[in-house]
Amino acid sequence: MPKIEEKKLPVLVVDLGGTKIITAIISPLGEIIARNYQPTLASEGLQLVIERLISGIDHLLRQNNLSPSQLSAISIAAAGIIDIKKGIITEAPNLPGWRNIPLRSIVEERYKIPTFLINDADAAALGEHRFGAGRGLNNLILLTLGTGVGGGIIINGKLYLGSTGSAAEIGHTIVEVNGPKCRCGNIGCLETLASGTAIAEEAVSRIRQGSKSSLSEIMKGKIEDITAEKVYLAAKNGDSLALEVITRAAYYLGIASVNLVNIFNPEMIIIGGSVAEMGDLLLEPVRQMVRERAFPLLAQAVRIVPAQLGNDAGIFGAAIFALEH
Amino acid sequence: MPKIEEKKLPVLVVDLGGTKIITAIISPLGEIIARNYQPTLASEGLQLVIERLISGIDHLLRQNNLSPSQLSAISIAAAGIIDIKKGIITEAPNLPGWRNIPLRSIVEERYKIPTFLINDADAAALGEHRFGAGRGLNNLILLTLGTGVGGGIIINGKLYLGSTGSAAEIGHTIVEVNGPKCRCGNIGCLETLASGTAIAEEAVSRIRQGSKSSLSEIMKGKIEDITAEKVYLAAKNGDSLALEVITRAAYYLGIASVNLVNIFNPEMIIIGGSVAEMGDLLLEPVRQMVRERAFPLLAQAVRIVPAQLGNDAGIFGAAIFALEH
Repeated sequence: MPKIEEKKLPVLVVDLGGTKIITAIISPLGEIIARNYQPTLASEGLQLVIERLISGIDHLLRQNNLSPSQLSAISIAAAGIIDIKKGIITEAPNLPGWRNIPLRSIVEERYKIPTFLINDADAAALGEHRFGAGRGLNNLILLTLGTGVGGGIIINGKLYLGSTGSAAEIGHTIVEVNGPKCRCGNIGCLETLASGTAIAEEAVSRIRQGSKSSLSEIMKGKIEDITAEKVYLAAKNGDSLALEVITRAAYYLGIASVNLVNIFNPEMIIIGGSVAEMGDLLLEPVRQMVRERAFPLLAQAVRIVPAQLGNDAGIFGAAIFALEH
Repeated sequence: MPKIEEKKLPVLVVDLGGTKIITAIISPLGEIIARNYQPTLASEGLQLVIERLISGIDHLLRQNNLSPSQLSAISIAAAGIIDIKKGIITEAPNLPGWRNIPLRSIVEERYKIPTFLINDADAAALGEHRFGAGRGLNNLILLTLGTGVGGGIIINGKLYLGSTGSAAEIGHTIVEVNGPKCRCGNIGCLETLASGTAIAEEAVSRIRQGSKSSLSEIMKGKIEDITAEKVYLAAKNGDSLALEVITRAAYYLGIASVNLVNIFNPEMIIIGGSVAEMGDLLLEPVRQMVRERAFPLLAQAVRIVPAQLGNDAGIFGAAIFALEH
């Protein structure tokens, strides 16, 4: 078990993502004492998501016979642009209606214990750095490919947060100047081309435009329910449309990775999130593009690897963030 | 006068760029005691450039009645991809023929004093951070637009060098996936679209393709001698082709800046190099694009400003680097 710190009370952590809310209690020794999953159901709007988050915390406390005073802190990792000093989610492309929501104080006022709010991919970077793929490294970049594309940056062994605590929005860097409109308001963001959502949408769009694919049969006509996972399974079974769609996502992930290598000269790029389960089908073209297009010295210095902790990266990272502050 | 450090001997610094070599002696108090300029004449090849660099150092020492032992160090800032541990210029897109050149040991063996080798834009970032536009800030990014496009990153008040000392090659991030081939081997790099060279080449190409411009007359037919500065002067005088060419460069500089803001959440982006003399004609469209396309919280937190030290940023930065190591 990864050891976080002794002599402290457990931390209750929440990972608020575009698809699911994970609530967990992590011991000072780094053990996951308890963990719950709920769907985010973000489309139901802000108020219901906050209620679900709160009831998830209440439920976990009750289930474990804990009162808030028996916790050292609550730490929330959320998929949004966070003003870290104010504890506000200023916006969240994958949580409709979330604008300037003071989530930290909402939670802190309810439970009366120290509460932290950081970006979910920043938390995942911290988790992978301390307990996962990036242990012991000085400089690494993490990308999470799921509903959206998140990013986290570790520099000199520390989480880099930027001037307002909102750095590492690598999913919202422009990789295709003439690309699709992004939910963030920008155009051609990596998120519009390499997220799970983008992969699914591209497959749906190509099939609707008449491309043949085994996915039509697999989905029994419910094309709109295609997910990135379904595209991956079809590609593994030799479906050429599915393979093209994944190759396209890998191409743009490669563009972003070349840029990250030339900007950060990192020791490692870690690819996490549900899309990373595609493994080498996704990562090998990315590695190849980095070898071909980044500066050789920098390309040789970087390893591009899958994340190791899966969903646990965010909750571990949130716990580490709270225990170190 | 900016104060670097007392009680130390002066540093001899060299700024080896794609166009010129600056050699200077900087006192421990931060005064420029002497300074020489030479053209790089990079096309004459590696050997002659090294000889010119050495004779520049010899000349400056003689001129100032100094022996190498009266210096604390020699510090070279060079326009290339530098392996900082080995002191090697591994490659240099704007210095033809430079591949794996151990410039640090060449100089160190000749003068027998501690010698440093860093990237020229890294040095400029250090100079602007300590004595120029970025004084007192924690996080800033510098871009130098000249023969090429260089970058430097200051994080938590320190120069960020990456795992091999070659970070911040922001000029070689892809801003146009279908863009021109870059001298670095990559495609669509910022350098191919927003450097002084790119601006001049775009004007030449458009005029050759039949576009009307006052530049044809100004250049008296010698279209191929157009420089970015000439394009700027024509634009200021209302030449619409020249204005379009600069607007295009500003567009791609804007794309890169949106990416930098969303990645680094910096307090400042400093634009230096000869192209930065275009001032607001170049910078205002960049600021506007950042306001429109970066996350509002991050866009509000960043200032995009011209460099303050001009050519002196690199030589000051090189001196600071030596004195702090």
